[in-house]
Amino acid sequence: MTQSPRPRTEVRRLKERGSYDPELIASILDEALICHVGFVHDGFPVVIPSIHARVGDTLYLHGSPASRMLRSMRSGDEISVNVTLLDGLVVARAAFHNSMNYRSVVIFGSPRIVEDTDEKWAALEAITNHVVPGRWADSRPMTEKEVRSTLVVALPINEASAKTRAGDPSDDAEDYELPIWAGVIPLSVTPAAPITDPLLKVDVEMPSYVRDYERS
Amino acid sequence: MTQSPRPRTEVRRLKERGSYDPELIASILDEALICHVGFVHDGFPVVIPSIHARVGDTLYLHGSPASRMLRSMRSGDEISVNVTLLDGLVVARAAFHNSMNYRSVVIFGSPRIVEDTDEKWAALEAITNHVVPGRWADSRPMTEKEVRSTLVVALPINEASAKTRAGDPSDDAEDYELPIWAGVIPLSVTPAAPITDPLLKVDVEMPSYVRDYERS
Repeated sequence: MTQSPRPRTEVRRLKERGSYDPELIASILDEALICHVGFVHDGFPVVIPSIHARVGDTLYLHGSPASRMLRSMRSGDEISVNVTLLDGLVVARAAFHNSMNYRSVVIFGSPRIVEDTDEKWAALEAITNHVVPGRWADSRPMTEKEVRSTLVVALPINEASAKTRAGDPSDDAEDYELPIWAGVIPLSVTPAAPITDPLLKVDVEMPSYVRDYERS
Repeated sequence: MTQSPRPRTEVRRLKERGSYDPELIASILDEALICHVGFVHDGFPVVIPSIHARVGDTLYLHGSPASRMLRSMRSGDEISVNVTLLDGLVVARAAFHNSMNYRSVVIFGSPRIVEDTDEKWAALEAITNHVVPGRWADSRPMTEKEVRSTLVVALPINEASAKTRAGDPSDDAEDYELPIWAGVIPLSVTPAAPITDPLLKVDVEMPSYVRDYERS
């Protein structure tokens, strides 16, 4: 993975928030449920939310071969991927210093269409288990036809950077005397009680990985 | 706002999930805490998370004049903005039919730099109150210098579409007989107890809009 910044991934604004630590980058990619993929289509920029999974130094994306995003990737054009975890709202004394606590990753690169069957199956398993760990083994397995009708692309995670903010507000020194509350409202993506499909025809217990689902 | 699809915003894949309803589009933009902005920089696509606010038919973004995103916008180039609210994980019987419940919006357009002082102040107020409703009035007001050092851009919401999925899994007919649990894990962005800045020097009560913060 990335060990040092490259021109495109160098964090230029608020450099102290930037990092090229592969473990940090991996942890953010692994926790995020979705990413946002940017690509150029007919000359204009498009941003699409997508599900991803990381396997080692590779990020996998999948979708219908008919999707604009994946058709666009067939050309070998460069894309960028952003993943953002929102950790809290930073409520400063000064409106100017309001902020958010977050962990985000940007990756640039040229995606490769995954043609190798074994790699494709492994990527689809990784994507399934990325969202609901343990689910792949319990699912009705994918058929060869389903795999053929799914396009999987691989993006190397070697041009990537992380940017994070954590902690209390950073107000101007003189503003700390003001009688204005300041602090952080922590935020997280939280599951509610799972809803069993009313069309479940067989009496099946809710799996523990669903009942106790959490993201962290 | 958009009343009918234009070529770029037409939802082509899974058309039944697409909508051009201005009220739906507005409600998604208003609930989302952040958006992802896509722009073309030196020929390659860049995706950056950003805070936004909607005022009528206009989406406002702000940032440092030094940021790559906002510098790029000065040129009048087109951008796209995506907002995604994740409502749940759809756990289907078949791995192929796993999905997510979501509400998302895509906007295309050419951003305009906001030069008018009144519009700029109103946009900054809207952005502050978009994140924490009621906060602008309680904050140490922005100074003219702070406003000058903030770049605000306006994007018309007239080329926009929404895409949503809700409800139970959609499995293949024959799979409903399988002894495999299926359903939905609802997800939401949930606040935890606010953390008062330990550097608060004056005894100030936590405002109700912080104590009872919720996003919906």
